[in-house]
Formats: sequence, structure tokens, C-alpha cells
Amino acid sequence: MELIAGVLNITTGGKRIVILNDETAAMLGVHSSDRVKLSYGGKKVIAIANLAADFPADRIWFYTEIAQALGVTGNENVDVQLAPMPESLGNVRAKLRGQRLRDHEITTIVKDVVEQHLSDIEISAFLTALKIYGLSMAENEALSRAMVETGMHMNFGEGTILDKHSIGGIPGDKTSMILVPIVAAAGFTIPKTSSRAITSPAGTADRVETLCPVNLEIGEIQRVVKKTGGCLVWGGALDLAPADDLFIRVEYPLGIDPMLLPSIMSKKKAMGATHLVVDIPTGMGAKIKTPTEAYSLAADFVHLGNHLGINVHCALTFGEQPLGCGIGPALEAREALNTLMGKGPVDVHDKAVSIAGMLFELVGKKNGRQLAEEMLHTRKAECKMRQIIEAQGGNPNVKPEDIPVGPEHAEVRAKGKGRVLWIKTEGIVQVARAAGTPKEAGAGIMLHTKLGDAVAKGDVLFEVYAERASKLQSALALAEKLEPVVLSRKPEERMLLDQYPAKTGKHEKSFMLDR
Amino acid sequence: MELIAGVLNITTGGKRIVILNDETAAMLGVHSSDRVKLSYGGKKVIAIANLAADFPADRIWFYTEIAQALGVTGNENVDVQLAPMPESLGNVRAKLRGQRLRDHEITTIVKDVVEQHLSDIEISAFLTALKIYGLSMAENEALSRAMVETGMHMNFGEGTILDKHSIGGIPGDKTSMILVPIVAAAGFTIPKTSSRAITSPAGTADRVETLCPVNLEIGEIQRVVKKTGGCLVWGGALDLAPADDLFIRVEYPLGIDPMLLPSIMSKKKAMGATHLVVDIPTGMGAKIKTPTEAYSLAADFVHLGNHLGINVHCALTFGEQPLGCGIGPALEAREALNTLMGKGPVDVHDKAVSIAGMLFELVGKKNGRQLAEEMLHTRKAECKMRQIIEAQGGNPNVKPEDIPVGPEHAEVRAKGKGRVLWIKTEGIVQVARAAGTPKEAGAGIMLHTKLGDAVAKGDVLFEVYAERASKLQSALALAEKLEPVVLSRKPEERMLLDQYPAKTGKHEKSFMLDR
Repeated sequence: MELIAGVLNITTGGKRIVILNDETAAMLGVHSSDRVKLSYGGKKVIAIANLAADFPADRIWFYTEIAQALGVTGNENVDVQLAPMPESLGNVRAKLRGQRLRDHEITTIVKDVVEQHLSDIEISAFLTALKIYGLSMAENEALSRAMVETGMHMNFGEGTILDKHSIGGIPGDKTSMILVPIVAAAGFTIPKTSSRAITSPAGTADRVETLCPVNLEIGEIQRVVKKTGGCLVWGGALDLAPADDLFIRVEYPLGIDPMLLPSIMSKKKAMGATHLVVDIPTGMGAKIKTPTEAYSLAADFVHLGNHLGINVHCALTFGEQPLGCGIGPALEAREALNTLMGKGPVDVHDKAVSIAGMLFELVGKKNGRQLAEEMLHTRKAECKMRQIIEAQGGNPNVKPEDIPVGPEHAEVRAKGKGRVLWIKTEGIVQVARAAGTPKEAGAGIMLHTKLGDAVAKGDVLFEVYAERASKLQSALALAEKLEPVVLSRKPEERMLLDQYPAKTGKHEKSFMLDR
Repeated sequence: MELIAGVLNITTGGKRIVILNDETAAMLGVHSSDRVKLSYGGKKVIAIANLAADFPADRIWFYTEIAQALGVTGNENVDVQLAPMPESLGNVRAKLRGQRLRDHEITTIVKDVVEQHLSDIEISAFLTALKIYGLSMAENEALSRAMVETGMHMNFGEGTILDKHSIGGIPGDKTSMILVPIVAAAGFTIPKTSSRAITSPAGTADRVETLCPVNLEIGEIQRVVKKTGGCLVWGGALDLAPADDLFIRVEYPLGIDPMLLPSIMSKKKAMGATHLVVDIPTGMGAKIKTPTEAYSLAADFVHLGNHLGINVHCALTFGEQPLGCGIGPALEAREALNTLMGKGPVDVHDKAVSIAGMLFELVGKKNGRQLAEEMLHTRKAECKMRQIIEAQGGNPNVKPEDIPVGPEHAEVRAKGKGRVLWIKTEGIVQVARAAGTPKEAGAGIMLHTKLGDAVAKGDVLFEVYAERASKLQSALALAEKLEPVVLSRKPEERMLLDQYPAKTGKHEKSFMLDR
């Protein structure tokens, strides 16, 4: 059927969507979400049809992207036909019925996600089915490969490429900022890409950005890594696995994360990693609550790594409380720099040398942890970090206290005495976000007490930092309500952890997708 | 944060969506699909945020509906804040984790679907989870009740209200057109609402529309039913269960139908039905392939009916082939009228009197089938049908041959001899749709042979009717390819039913959502 083109000057973020009057659609046999084949001037494009009652008949309306793809500007006659169901959608439907998908079936889905041929409805159903049925290792591998194939690759030559990843979930985890310079200082190549925070107070990219630019292009990254052996850059704009970003957009409102393994491993593969340590924080405050779950996930990482040609070891780390004391981009960058200078908290130091040591042993070194300690002790790691900062465009002579933190701050004090029994990750995250993190880099929390510390009435439990007075007040009010640091003389005296249903309001556990 | 309102003159079909620049969203702590609370001039509205990079910062863009709801026309200062996650979304997430939802939890979801507070992503995930986990009877009941509560109700007084429903899937099933006048002729009230075809060649509303208007308003329906005891109208515009239409929009591209029970039963409840027979066609060509599945579904219908205060019986009917010979709105209306006049195919007659008989016995009559036969035999049913046609605004004296069928037609003949072993429902549907059904009412198929018939080489298997020559040619080409009528002298000679993967192209089983 010939229809007259209308162009809406609106972009859809790439989605190939057209709008048809519903009567016209009925004439074409087209229902909402069906595909239509559009032909104009020798060009052919497939688009998803949305129907609307109040659009004129005999017309087809294009969003900007699809109008450009077809080369129409308005008032052209476009041939419109019902298109068959895309193969990828047939495969999505098979997954809804519980079928295991084969490699090429998964490839059709990932390709059509990247090329925006699948609608939000269809992607959501696919991810929900993956979440409920779980993924076979073959499916994890196929998803990883398809996501690598549809993205950009980095090339640092033939040699050994080391990498580290944390599945996230622990506030204040600035390990990468200490580990990368340790590994590079020992002469290895470690091109580390990181994410920005989505639901947490800071991602590694947010932390590093308080020291130097992180938004580097591929050519710049290669120059930095060639010069220093390492980098600490934002991976988000590199298009390493563009499918993953599109999946995350849909996973976020649902609070599900079924593609954890392929999401992480595809990006490592695209970076050319040959040896990788994955940090799995385990404990009540972490994403993974029990060792059983942690070992199971670890086995999957190792197995998938095998199939993808990456030698993977996993670190199960203590995940019962935040790492170190600083939480929030600037406070964490200060603490990381202090740790490189030998003045950091014990847990931050220990985690960095433990994981760096595992990486060293993974590539054949003996006494890996000792080598890592040596890099810190001799200040070689600090020196390397300053080289990286300079190569990425920052000030190599930066002192921890040069990093600006929020001018507004206040202390939260103990209302009684006792020992710190529990630090609620979720409460800490919410208070830090209320204070302005991650967008306001100087906002955050400085813990003055950690698990097991003895506290007297009136002692400072933590400080809250903010860039604006109004946010400081919101954060303090929330801290008063949530009481993220829980005291007790003995565990027995605080047996009731929580009530369900909640005594006041809903349980609003926010979703920790960041990885 | 104060943002300047911009208004896009585009409707979203009711969805409450606003667009924010992604940097502005980050300042607000808003991610794609998060909710924002908008305040302007004393009005407050919650909307779903979509993010776009190429929209100006410091502005918020409204689609028409939400602009109207808030009373902005452009350039006003609107206060925008991150809103908490809606309770309904928390309940959707609980379902993704496999939780059974309680009544009030389901109510929040249905209410927010109707009020367009849930996005396509979220509705799709909910329906996918229902499809995979299945629904408990309590969930089916809660969904039914919530869908009734959020829709319009009909009131035909205190007495007994009869109804009939088929779960669909059998081409040519015009039973309602014969059953409704039989039941009304016997003095009962049967206000029948029907759907239009979505993926089948004709729905009851499409068939009846070749005889009289079906798009009646609630007041008109009550007048028709008061006058004649029955009606045959389109239920789609009555808003009986508006949630269902919104769910179906999302189910359609996914080819899933998890809400079959509440979808049907909510509409029956809204019509005030007290006694209902549900037809479950069972067999290779039907939605339900085996008696085991059919009995299980039947038990669920009866059980749910009990809870909703509707006395339900189910009919398991032969579902191996199309019903009667005519397929397509006009051809089926002709056949229905012929059956009422005593000249219809045996299977059409038998199915109508069987199910009408069940309804009669459900309300306490003895020898129900005999009473139904009598209504046909005495022409009281035909007379009643003509009253209904007149009351709905059609010509009561219409003869079957007055109903126009497609002027383009051609015969498809047997290429060999044998018996009709199998009639592929899916093939018949595809050929009929290629010929122009359901939109072109005169298009369709007239079967000349049914299961078990002996056929000689060159005999007519079926005729194809179309309103346009081009569609006739498409339909004939498809018939040549699909060979929907399968011949064999003995079953043993045709052991191979199909190949997987398909020899040529994909298996494209279209989705029979119509119910």
C-alpha cells in the first residue's frame, strides 16, 4: 500500500519505529508491534509499527532516525507492506517457552537488539525469561561472543593482558585504583575500563575522574597503556559491547540482572584480556549473600573464561561492610591515594595486595602477594599511579587533600554505647546518594567506626559530606531514619533484624546493578 | 529542580511519559524508566522519564496527555523530583522472583496498567513471569476481580443471565450466531459480546457485522436485549475490562496468553453472567491439543467461576478441522443463516444445539438438546435472529445470498486421489488472511471436502474468495505452497508430518490470541 510520508522531528534513540493510523494498519493486516517493510527510492527498511487512532489515515509517520535511513523528508509516497516476523523474535518466543537457544539463535537476538529491530516489550520478555529459566553455559558463551562481535575491540598486541573485575555491591570499593598501578608497576599490561555509578554512590570511573579525565577515546587509551602499562578509564563510551547497554536499560526498572556473566566477560574479551581475577564480595551487605552462591558463581566465571580463552580466577572477599572509610567519588579517591602512599586503611590495603597477588600468580609469578606488597612499599605503585594520572591528562603531583570534598559536612553520633554489630549497606548507599553522590563528587560519607569497634555514647559514627546545605540536611534526616550503623553490646541483645511487612512504609531496596 | 516545560504535540495513547535531557536527569538522580513527580500550579502528576541526549538541558518535554493532565502548554516552570518506585512495580518485581501475589498486590498492578503508570518494559516482564511461573487460582481470581473493578459493568436486572464463550482457534466457528438466537428464542437472556479477529480470518463481531451494526453503545445494547432477549455485539469498545486490552497489546508480539482465564472471566462477570458454557475445542488443529490439557483448563474455568459467582460448565469439542465449510466473515454469516434456516452443515448444527442444550440444562431444563433442536426446527431461532438483526439496525429479511462475497474466486483441486487425512488449521488461516480476511469481509475459503472424504484427482478441495484479484493470486500461491488439505489413501502412507528444522524457511506459526 502506498502511504504519504510524514516526519516527526523526534529521535527515538535509534529505535526503528513508525506510526500508522489504526484503520490504515488494519487494511494492511498490521497490528501494534508488527513489522512493516518500507520501500522508497530503491531503499528498503524494516520498522516496528505503533498504532494511533488520532493520526490521519493514508499517512505513515517517521521518527527522525528511520526517516533518515529511508531518505524521506516528508510528503513522499512510500510503499508499506506487512513484513514477516523477524527470526530474532521467533527465537525470543522460543525462550519464553523454555527452549535452550543455540549459538546462531542467540546471535540473531543480540544483533537485532543492537540494530534496534526488537522492541522494549520483546527485549523485556527475553530478559525476564532468562532471569526465570537461568542460562546454560552454552547460552552464556553465545551471548558473550555475540556481544563481542557486535562491538568494538581493543588491541594491545600479542602479549599477556591482565584485568580485574568486581561484581560490585560494596560501597567504598576503590580496589582498582590501587591494584592497577601495582600491576603496571610490576611491568604488566592492565588496561582497566570501569563503569560510572548507576545506583551506587560511586563507580571507579567516578572516583578516578576526581584525579584526571576518564572519558578517553580508543586511540588515547592505547597511547596511555603503551606509555604506562595501565589505565583507569570509563568504558561506557567505547562501544565494547553496545548490546549490554541496551539490555541494562531494560533490566534497570525490573531490578533483574540475568546477563551478569556475559555482560562482564564480553567486555573483558573485547579489551583483549588473557588473565582475569573476578572479585566476588560475599556477605550480608553484598550482592552474593552466602559462600555457596559465591562458589557457584565463581565456577561459572572460570568455566565461561575457559570457553572464551581467558584464564579466570575468582576472589571471594569479605562483603559484610563498606571497604575502607571513604564513600563517594572524592572521599574514595583521597583514600586510594593515601593507600598508595602507605597511609590507607588496613582492609583497603589488604584487598588490593591480595587480588594483585592472585593476578601475579595467575601469570606464573611466585609469592604474588609479596610482589604486590613490594610495589606498594617501594612506592613504585604510587609513582605508577602518578604516571597514569599524567598520561590521562591530570596533575601527577596531586596530594590527597587537594581533591575537593563537599564544604557542607556534619557528624552523626552514637545515641548509646556498644559495639558496631552491623553496617547496613543499603542504608549507607541511600544516605550517600541523598547527600549528592555520585553526580556531586565531593559528597559522601566518612565512616569513623567499622564492624566490631567499641563505641561510647556521643562518639562519631560517621560524617556526611555534601556540596549543598539542602542535600546535607536530606542526608542527615535519612541517616536519622535508617540508622545504617547498628550498635549492640552483644548480638543476642538485638535479635530482631527487621519486620515484614515493614512497620512504616514499603521496603525499598534499591537495585544494585552496577558491576 | 525547576525545569521549563516543552510540549510535543504527540499522543502516547495515554502513557504518562516525559522526556529529559540525560545530563539533567543525572542531576536529578533519575535513570531511564524512573518515575518523576511533576508539580505545577498546585497540580501533581507522576510520569515515567525517558532520557534523550539531544534534547536541551533545563527543559522537560511532555507528550500531549501528560501536558493536559498537568495543565501546561509550554514555557512554564515545572518542579521535577525523583519519585519513589510505584508499589505496583515492587509487586511486578516480586512476581519476577517467583512470589505468589496477594489480592491487593495484583490490584495495584491492574490499576496502574489501566492508569498507564507502568511502562511496556514492566508490563512485558509481568506477563512473561505469569506465563513461565503460571498463575495460582487465587491470582486468577484477583486478576479477574481487579479487571472487573477497573472497567464498566452492564446491568440486565436481577434474573438469570446466560452466556457462552469459545477459547477460539477453530477457523469457521460461527456457533454463537446460531446459539444466541436459540437461547433467546427459548425465553432466556443472553447478551453476547464478541471480539473482532486479531490473527484469525474472522471473529464473531466480524461475521455479524455483515448482517447488522455490532458497534453498539451500552444503552443501545440494553435496549436490544430488553426487546429480544439477546444481542450479538462487539465488546471491544465497551471498556468492560480495559486492562485486558492493554495486556493483549503486549502479549501479541510475544505470542503468549497467560491471562486466558481472567481475560475471559472478567468480561463475563462485567456482563453480569450467572450461567456460562465455555467451549474448549480440542485436537491437533486447535489451541488445546490433548484431552488432558482440555480437562485441566476446564477444571480451572469451573473453579474460577465458582469463586466469581458464575455457574460454569465446559464443552470439550472436536477441534481437528475447521467448523462447517465457510471461512471468512461473509461466507460464515451465510452459513450461519443457512443453519438457522435448516440448511447448514451437520457439524455446525450439532455444535450449536449441543452447547445450547448444555446451557439449558445448566439453568434447570431437562432434555436441553431437544429444546435447542426444537427452537431450530420450529424456525423460532431463525425468527429470533431476524429480530436481533433488526434491533441492532440491520435488514431482518436478509437472505443468505444477499450477503456479498468476494467477486474474485478460484477453485483449488486435488493433485491426486485419496481421503482427506488432515486439514491444517494454520494453513487455512494463512490462505484466508492472504485472501483479505478479516478486513475484507467478502474474502475467505469455502471447503468442499472435510476430514475422511474420498477425493478423486481433479476434485475441488476448496474455493478461495477475494475482493481483489491481486489478493486472490497471493492466496492461491500460498495455498499451492502450504497445501492445507492433506490427502492419503491410508494414514500409513503419509507418516512424515513435518520436518524440523524446516526444509525451506522458518516455521512461522502465527499466534492465535483471538478468544
